[in-house]
Amino acid sequence: MTSSNSDRPHRLNEFAMIAKYFAPLSKGAAGAAGLTDDVATLNVPAGHEMVAKVDAVVEGVHFLRHDPASLVASKALRVNLSDLAAKGATPIGYLLSLSLASWADDDWIAQFAEGLREDQNHFGVDLLGGDTTSTPGPVTISITALGSILAGTTVRRAGAQPGDLVFVTGSIGDAGAGLAVLKGEGTDLPASERETLIRRYRVPEPRLAVGRLLPGLASASLDVSDGLIADLGHIAETSAVRLVVEAARVPLSSAVRALWGDGIDGIVRCVTVGDDYEIAFTAPAQARSRIADVAARSRIPVTEIGTVEAGQGVTLLDRGEPVPINRPGYTHF
Amino acid sequence: MTSSNSDRPHRLNEFAMIAKYFAPLSKGAAGAAGLTDDVATLNVPAGHEMVAKVDAVVEGVHFLRHDPASLVASKALRVNLSDLAAKGATPIGYLLSLSLASWADDDWIAQFAEGLREDQNHFGVDLLGGDTTSTPGPVTISITALGSILAGTTVRRAGAQPGDLVFVTGSIGDAGAGLAVLKGEGTDLPASERETLIRRYRVPEPRLAVGRLLPGLASASLDVSDGLIADLGHIAETSAVRLVVEAARVPLSSAVRALWGDGIDGIVRCVTVGDDYEIAFTAPAQARSRIADVAARSRIPVTEIGTVEAGQGVTLLDRGEPVPINRPGYTHF
Repeated sequence: MTSSNSDRPHRLNEFAMIAKYFAPLSKGAAGAAGLTDDVATLNVPAGHEMVAKVDAVVEGVHFLRHDPASLVASKALRVNLSDLAAKGATPIGYLLSLSLASWADDDWIAQFAEGLREDQNHFGVDLLGGDTTSTPGPVTISITALGSILAGTTVRRAGAQPGDLVFVTGSIGDAGAGLAVLKGEGTDLPASERETLIRRYRVPEPRLAVGRLLPGLASASLDVSDGLIADLGHIAETSAVRLVVEAARVPLSSAVRALWGDGIDGIVRCVTVGDDYEIAFTAPAQARSRIADVAARSRIPVTEIGTVEAGQGVTLLDRGEPVPINRPGYTHF
Repeated sequence: MTSSNSDRPHRLNEFAMIAKYFAPLSKGAAGAAGLTDDVATLNVPAGHEMVAKVDAVVEGVHFLRHDPASLVASKALRVNLSDLAAKGATPIGYLLSLSLASWADDDWIAQFAEGLREDQNHFGVDLLGGDTTSTPGPVTISITALGSILAGTTVRRAGAQPGDLVFVTGSIGDAGAGLAVLKGEGTDLPASERETLIRRYRVPEPRLAVGRLLPGLASASLDVSDGLIADLGHIAETSAVRLVVEAARVPLSSAVRALWGDGIDGIVRCVTVGDDYEIAFTAPAQARSRIADVAARSRIPVTEIGTVEAGQGVTLLDRGEPVPINRPGYTHF
C-alpha cells in the first residue's frame, strides 16, 4: 500500500493509518505482505483464469458525506462482487484506491474500514493492496475486485440465442424505491417497509450463490445496475437478439408494491431505476428445471420473466402490448 | 466497462466515449471483450502468479488541469508499471477507473486515450477493463496494473541482509528537479537541460528491462517514488536492517548537477525529492558481477551506492560522516 502527499495533518499520517485500519484487513492474504510492499501477488488455481473488475464510487455522485461510512465501504465493495457473481466467478480479494478529502477524519476512516472488515468476513475476501492519496475534491473510492473462474467458463453478455428464456434473481426496483424514500417519497409507508427499501439501496446483496451455478447453464448474464431494461439492452446488443419481458412476471417485493402500486406505471419505474444488483440472465428453455434447482440450492428466488427472440432491443409487454419506455435506466453523461 | 450517472451532456455520452476512445485500447486482449462486458478475464501462465498494483493520480495533487493529457495518462500508467518492474513482474494489462470533472471535454479525453495508446505499444500492455464516472471534483485516475511472475520469485521489500550491497538504476533527483524547474528554478539553465528534467518529471521510465532480471538476484527491491532515502527506509524497516548510502556514489545526471551543483546540499535534495521511478535494490556482494551483466544487457545504468548493515534506518555518508536528513521524502498526511 502506498500513499501520496498532502499538507493536511488532520488525521493519522498515512503509514499509521494504513497500519491501524487497513493492514489488519490484509491478514488473510499472504500475497498482500501486510500492505508493506509495492504489489500484491495472488495465486490462480490450476486450470482457472483471473477475473477482474473495477468500479469507483464518488462522494456527491454515489454517496453523501453524511452517509454511514461503513455502508459506503460495503456498497463500494459489493457492487464489484456483484459483477463477479453475475459472471460465475469466485472472488478472491480486492485492491482499494482511496482518495481522501480533508473532511474525512479518523472516525470516518475507522468506520469505513469496519464496513470492509464485516464484508470481508461475509464474502470470504481479503484486502490485497491499495493506495491512499489526498484529494482537494470529494472522497473517491475505487475498488478492483479480483476473482477466479474455471478457464473458458465465464458467462458473458454475448451468447443469448433466440428461443432462450430470460431470468432474474431476487426482486427488482427495491433499491431505486429506497432512494426515492430517502428523497421524500412514501412518508405514509410503515417504517419497516421504508427501512427495507433503504437498506436495499445502501447495501446491495451480490448474488454469488446463484452466479457460481450459472457457468454451463446461462447463455448470457450480467448484474442489474443501470436498470433492468437498460441492462437487458446490453445483452440484446452484444448478443444481437431481442429480449421480450412480460411486465406481470417481473418480481416485485411487497414493500415496493406498497410504495409504487401494482400497476404498469409502478412496474415501469421498477424496471428502470437501477441499483438492483440482481443477476439477469438468459438460458435455453431446456435448462428451466435446472434453474429451479439453482434457486432451491442457493435459496435465492429466480424468476422467469421473458423470452429471447430474433431482432433487437428490449420490449416490455403489458397484457400482450408493448409498453413505451422513455428512459430505460440511469441518464449517463 | 461500465459507467455512472451524470447530468452533464458536455461530451460524448459514455457509451459512445468508451466505444470511440477506450474500446480500441482493449483490442489486443481477448479477455477484455471489447469493454462490452462486466469483467475482464486474463490467463496466468502455468507456474506463475498474478501481480497487482493500484495507484491513483488526482488533478491538483499529482497533475494540473492544463498539463498535456497524454502525459497525464502516460504517468498514471507508468507509475504502476514501475512497481511491477521493481518486483520482477511482467505487465499484462491494466484496468482504468476514470472520474471525469465537467471541464474534461472530448479533446482532453482523446489526448488522454492517445497517451495510453502510445504507452500500450511501448510496454506491450492492453486496457483490460474499466469504469467511467462523473465527479463534482477533480479528475481522478486510478489504474490497476496486472502482471505475472514465476510463482514465488517476487522480489519483496523484506529480504535485505547485512553484508548486502545497495544499488540503484538510472539517475536520482531528475524528476524532482524537473518539478522545481516547472516551479521557477533554473531559469539560467540551457533550455535543453530544463526540458530533460521536466520530461523526467512528467514521463517516468519504468525499468522493466532491469526488473525482470532481478528475481533470484536481488534480496530486496522497490521503485523510488517518495524519495531515495525515504524508500530505502522502507527496505530498512521491512528487512529490519540499516542501509548506508555514500553520497558521492549516488548517480546524478549532468542536468541536475547544472541545476543544484555537485555539493552535498544538491545531493541531499536529489535523494529526498521523489518521483524518480528508478529501482533501488539490495543484493549479496557475490552478485556484483551478475548485476554488471544486468546493466549491460538492459542498457540501463545500475550503480552501487552503499551497503546493508545490522541496525535500522538509512544513513547518508558524506566523506565518512553521516549527513543529517530532516525530510527523507514527500511529506504525507
